Amino acid sequence: MLEMKKILVVGLGLIGGSLAMALRGFEDFEIVGTDRSPAVREQAAEKGTGDRIAPGPGPELPGADVVVLCQDPAGITGFLKEHKDRFKPGALVTDVCGVKTAVMEAAACLPDGVDFVGCHPMAGKEVSGIANAEGGLFRNTHFIVTPGPRSTPEHLALLRRMAAHCRFGDVIETTPERHDAMIAYTSQLMHVIALSVCDNDELFACQGFEGGSFRDCTRVAALDPAMWTQLFTLNAPALCRVLGVLEERLGQYRRAIQSGDREGLSAMLAQASGRKKQIDLERARGDDVRPSF
Amino acid sequence: MLEMKKILVVGLGLIGGSLAMALRGFEDFEIVGTDRSPAVREQAAEKGTGDRIAPGPGPELPGADVVVLCQDPAGITGFLKEHKDRFKPGALVTDVCGVKTAVMEAAACLPDGVDFVGCHPMAGKEVSGIANAEGGLFRNTHFIVTPGPRSTPEHLALLRRMAAHCRFGDVIETTPERHDAMIAYTSQLMHVIALSVCDNDELFACQGFEGGSFRDCTRVAALDPAMWTQLFTLNAPALCRVLGVLEERLGQYRRAIQSGDREGLSAMLAQASGRKKQIDLERARGDDVRPSF
Repeated sequence: MLEMKKILVVGLGLIGGSLAMALRGFEDFEIVGTDRSPAVREQAAEKGTGDRIAPGPGPELPGADVVVLCQDPAGITGFLKEHKDRFKPGALVTDVCGVKTAVMEAAACLPDGVDFVGCHPMAGKEVSGIANAEGGLFRNTHFIVTPGPRSTPEHLALLRRMAAHCRFGDVIETTPERHDAMIAYTSQLMHVIALSVCDNDELFACQGFEGGSFRDCTRVAALDPAMWTQLFTLNAPALCRVLGVLEERLGQYRRAIQSGDREGLSAMLAQASGRKKQIDLERARGDDVRPSF
Repeated sequence: MLEMKKILVVGLGLIGGSLAMALRGFEDFEIVGTDRSPAVREQAAEKGTGDRIAPGPGPELPGADVVVLCQDPAGITGFLKEHKDRFKPGALVTDVCGVKTAVMEAAACLPDGVDFVGCHPMAGKEVSGIANAEGGLFRNTHFIVTPGPRSTPEHLALLRRMAAHCRFGDVIETTPERHDAMIAYTSQLMHVIALSVCDNDELFACQGFEGGSFRDCTRVAALDPAMWTQLFTLNAPALCRVLGVLEERLGQYRRAIQSGDREGLSAMLAQASGRKKQIDLERARGDDVRPSF
């Protein structure tokens, strides 16, 4: 009889819990979940998160073939530092952090025989925690992978099979730097916009006047302040760059609207809406991935 | 046998076409649709839009008890001016324009016996035209009503029954000025944000990195430039005010992120996300209207 291999999922919040659920039945791997909170471990066990819930990572780490770090950014980098000598030689270590350069830098402390590959499952919900975890969370979303300098083709292939088992829509391989620049624009900027819109005095007065565009734009404002403070700060240069571009563009629209120059405004609207229509067409042709967050 | 009363829907685009479909079977009213484009009229007739499609408004107007103007803003104000003496005395005239002060001002040209009540069905799609019209478009969206100085309780009650027949989620009665101030924030600002985000060079490079927040925030950028140029310009003061507030707030976030002051940034995030969580709770308690645009 073959011995089971082991995937250890550390941190059973929304993403970790959902991953441990989605990974069940993956090849010949036992899925073990752990969390520092006893209440979370109990709820995870009740929900059937993974095959088994362990009280802590300590005894599990030396036997884990794959370790997936699903804490907040500081939790991930702290774990790497604290446990760097306890990983199994030859193990694949990965994470789910929304910023990759800082995590890859922290992973440089790992010994030679341990392979760190950064991952970012582009899935989520407006609510967090194990209570909201579900195995179907990743269906048709992007799975972004940033290999490290020592990453082996075998480990990258293993991650692709794990992603397929979790029903991700596609796997995007890129550098940590490009990931962080792109995510500043496509995700972090959307969160700063949503927060900024909610900072308006009219927020509580506008009931009855919201359309779907308002609901959609502000949806992600109900975020976890501690985690997003980390994510924004860890990616400050890229995020401030796209924020600056947006502020400039909003000012151009404001001045065009104020000036009453309908022709100039119409040309701006035609150009921007044309870009959106073109990208919608390209997406519809090339790709049916419908990301969920 | 009672004579049928008549509702005339002028302009069979997405909103007008959908209204003419949704209104079928309303009390003892015949629903007549018309559009200046023969191709649109033909498509509308094929889809069963209203009970009957008329070649033009001219012969229908004197017999119409209710007239719903569904053209673009300039089309609505132009129609009022051109046909002001052809409405049936005692008729209810209304419209669907997303800006209300300018339309109410234009409606001041109507003779004393004609009652103009501004309306704004807060429904829509990213696609336009009769081809995309559907009777279910208004289900659970807001129907905003701005009565005029001569509006009768009977006409307001009639509009409420029409709204109920079209399955609107609620009817909000307000002044044109308050409507325009609220809509600048909840709708027009969302459209300027979506356009501005699409004006970034990264738009075409970011495939594979978009989450749902990006898709949701940019969704409405695929707009009709001519119509939105009118809407923005007609509501310039209110829109420029909320744009200014947003620019200032984005700058505050950018400076907090750049400064590395995690505590200050965290406090900003806690406040804004707290406001969003509070409003979500209030909405969940008070109101199950889920607007579609």
